[in-house]
Amino acid sequence: MPDDLLQTSATLQPGQLLARGVCRHLRAMNFVCVEELVPVRGLRVDVMALGPKGEVWVVECKSSRADFQSDHKWQGYLEWCDRFFWAVDGDFPTDLLPNETGLILADAYDAEIVRMGPENKLAAARRKVMVQKFARTAAMRLQALRDPTAGFGAGFG
Amino acid sequence: MPDDLLQTSATLQPGQLLARGVCRHLRAMNFVCVEELVPVRGLRVDVMALGPKGEVWVVECKSSRADFQSDHKWQGYLEWCDRFFWAVDGDFPTDLLPNETGLILADAYDAEIVRMGPENKLAAARRKVMVQKFARTAAMRLQALRDPTAGFGAGFG
Repeated sequence: MPDDLLQTSATLQPGQLLARGVCRHLRAMNFVCVEELVPVRGLRVDVMALGPKGEVWVVECKSSRADFQSDHKWQGYLEWCDRFFWAVDGDFPTDLLPNETGLILADAYDAEIVRMGPENKLAAARRKVMVQKFARTAAMRLQALRDPTAGFGAGFG
Repeated sequence: MPDDLLQTSATLQPGQLLARGVCRHLRAMNFVCVEELVPVRGLRVDVMALGPKGEVWVVECKSSRADFQSDHKWQGYLEWCDRFFWAVDGDFPTDLLPNETGLILADAYDAEIVRMGPENKLAAARRKVMVQKFARTAAMRLQALRDPTAGFGAGFG
């Protein structure tokens, strides 16, 4: 089984542990999640969440001040979602984060939405593209896990 | 890890082995697949495939004449897809199958489209519902596999 598809605390990076907690919380809100989704070449979002009414949220997970400050692409994510959030742990200096974004406090086990990201609704055509991309990414990875001997890539490449 | 999510020849039923071969072949055609998807309460399709342009195909896998003859619901699947196919193995009496449907010859390892199912394009609103259902089902199962300790169901219930 491809190791990069299985989540264990030993193999996950700090940002991936936050993502796991975020996905658990969003799942409890009836959102489903895919991690490390590529909306367009050159961009990779940490978590894309799809809500029960087709809502598209993006969550970027930052494990430290340096991790945040080295991200020069985040504004490029805004146009691919209805709402954008940062996910950070309790030690993160949240004053650094721009006000007009959502904020999630997370650890490896759970998360909490502290500030809802403002809504900027996707146009219908782009929402369609994103939901389809989400569907394809999730299904490819699921197949790679369920049927590993078929030799398909896991889509994390 | 939930056993019903992992595919091994030892645990799969004959129809599920055909589905595995079908999904492998469709993946090579750049379609992604989800098995046992429920488009609406009371219906469960063996394979739903999503194409690169958003095409929605349904494949019903029949391991024997009795398996086919006991299916009284298949015409209900037609309204949920652009194209409908049967998947059967080389021993199946294909004369039994209605002409106006697609035909795939499959085994546990691969498959081949023998007759393309006629196209009846979904209305846009229904396609949207189906793609979103596909996305949610795939992502829930992926999360259940990747993060089993979170205790979410696998969506096969």
